Amino acid sequence: MAGADSLTGIEEAMARLEAYMQGLVESPVLWLSAPARHLLSAGGKRLRAALVFRAAQLGGRPIAPQTVYAAAAVELVHAASLVHDDLIDQSPHRRGQPTIHEKWHHDAAVLVGDYLFALAARAIALTGEIRVLEAIAEAAVAICEGEISTVDQVEPLEVALESYRLKIGRKTASLFGAAGRIGAICGGAAEETVAAMGAFGYALGMAFQIVDDVLDYVGDEHLLGKPAGGDLRRGLITLPLIYAVAHDDSDGLLRRAVARFGEPFPPEEFAAVLQRVQNSSGPRLAREEALRYYEQALKHLQVVTEPEQRSPLEEIARRVVERTY
Amino acid sequence: MAGADSLTGIEEAMARLEAYMQGLVESPVLWLSAPARHLLSAGGKRLRAALVFRAAQLGGRPIAPQTVYAAAAVELVHAASLVHDDLIDQSPHRRGQPTIHEKWHHDAAVLVGDYLFALAARAIALTGEIRVLEAIAEAAVAICEGEISTVDQVEPLEVALESYRLKIGRKTASLFGAAGRIGAICGGAAEETVAAMGAFGYALGMAFQIVDDVLDYVGDEHLLGKPAGGDLRRGLITLPLIYAVAHDDSDGLLRRAVARFGEPFPPEEFAAVLQRVQNSSGPRLAREEALRYYEQALKHLQVVTEPEQRSPLEEIARRVVERTY
Repeated sequence: MAGADSLTGIEEAMARLEAYMQGLVESPVLWLSAPARHLLSAGGKRLRAALVFRAAQLGGRPIAPQTVYAAAAVELVHAASLVHDDLIDQSPHRRGQPTIHEKWHHDAAVLVGDYLFALAARAIALTGEIRVLEAIAEAAVAICEGEISTVDQVEPLEVALESYRLKIGRKTASLFGAAGRIGAICGGAAEETVAAMGAFGYALGMAFQIVDDVLDYVGDEHLLGKPAGGDLRRGLITLPLIYAVAHDDSDGLLRRAVARFGEPFPPEEFAAVLQRVQNSSGPRLAREEALRYYEQALKHLQVVTEPEQRSPLEEIARRVVERTY
Repeated sequence: MAGADSLTGIEEAMARLEAYMQGLVESPVLWLSAPARHLLSAGGKRLRAALVFRAAQLGGRPIAPQTVYAAAAVELVHAASLVHDDLIDQSPHRRGQPTIHEKWHHDAAVLVGDYLFALAARAIALTGEIRVLEAIAEAAVAICEGEISTVDQVEPLEVALESYRLKIGRKTASLFGAAGRIGAICGGAAEETVAAMGAFGYALGMAFQIVDDVLDYVGDEHLLGKPAGGDLRRGLITLPLIYAVAHDDSDGLLRRAVARFGEPFPPEEFAAVLQRVQNSSGPRLAREEALRYYEQALKHLQVVTEPEQRSPLEEIARRVVERTY
């Protein structure tokens, strides 16, 4: 049963996670610490860590200290990928804060990302569980492949949908899937539950990314800490745009804009295109797709027979689809 | 004893390593594969892999397939760090080939480096040995810290030497140390041998980096595939320069040049400063220091009592200090 060193519950596990991550970024090399600390304190939702902990609790045992390292590893891989992602996209802000390459320097962003990856590897080593490494390594490979895969056409609809799903599956859902798997592994769950938690996490990650892409068009700019239409401005084809083209582009305004992605957007045209997507059925249809992934995620929870064990995971899933920022 | 799947010796292990690494870079995302393949085929010496294999053979057993994954992981971490290192230093060439950011694009260099790190993590998972992860994770953290630590003064001599040793210890020796350790671990060696192989690798890595820094001043430009004086041009303080200032700078030519590091170098002044270092006792004194690390490395081999087991490791050490490119 629970060893002397087990944690009592999710609040304690979350507090240990924060303490561990803050301790990590006190590198002997101060210049690295400042950007890393900036990043880790920028108020992430720790949704992936919560998924690890909740999946770990399925076995009915208290959360073990090794689970905190596993959750930290997932959050560190996520943070590392954000730093390099923002650098490549040249995004000036993330959660209302300046990004690393903006606040410090381009080289700092390369190095801070690498440093966070390396710290993730160290955290995984501390779990002492090679299956945690397996799951996170697969996700890390997928994230790189997702970062580089492109959605380069809005039609035919089925082709556009397929490349969009492939990209977000790799870029986002893979790490949510890993979080579900490794939580179940750390909790000592049976292989069937490990697989179900991986599938739950993956479907949830799909829903998460679609909601993210919808909010990029119709979210509250103050809550999000960034102006609407960032993806459109950067020429990224996401689900709301794909559905808007399919259903509300009889005059070809959107198709013409997409054909010129890569060239700078004249301000008036940008406003017209953004408004067209916002007022189209695109955001609603995308949100409905997110809900289908949410329902798919809930189905994978059926492997958990006790309702009181299922409900915290259902709660995480609800937070993902109901979030407004 | 040796299972059916064991490898017969170092040649077969090396061939399997190359096959594994070439297979790795056939990513489904073609655009990532091309730069990754360019990098991995650019003819590295595979010195770190050889160290893993030779340390693994100490136990007297055939090299196991898991050892190939461990060696691949070390080479992949090394390759990943080179890509980001070249990007940050803006080096146009590496081993006579254009660097990734030169041949493709800045973003490609960020992503290819990340991808190689992720592939390294997957290779480590395939070893099934958490101690391999421990060793490589420590080295990966150290490499980041080494990349960012600076040698920002040439005197007082002791201070300059200390910051130089600290930097190369993290940047280079840490991964050689990990290679020695994990080879011994994969070979099933006792903890005393694992520690000795780690210390052997670390000392050898110090010698390797010093020889590298000497060759940057006095190596054959054709063999190296790059012009002499690259470190000087980029304003990097390395051991030959530190010793040159301490012994052959009575007119202050070198000190004045170092004080202006960061500003562009007028071509005539650059030639004069380069020649001064080349003709000073700096390169010779640095090489003597490399030899002291070489001898220190050999001492750690005393834990290996059989001369025929020791000699391949002695041979690797000789290659490190005798290399001319």
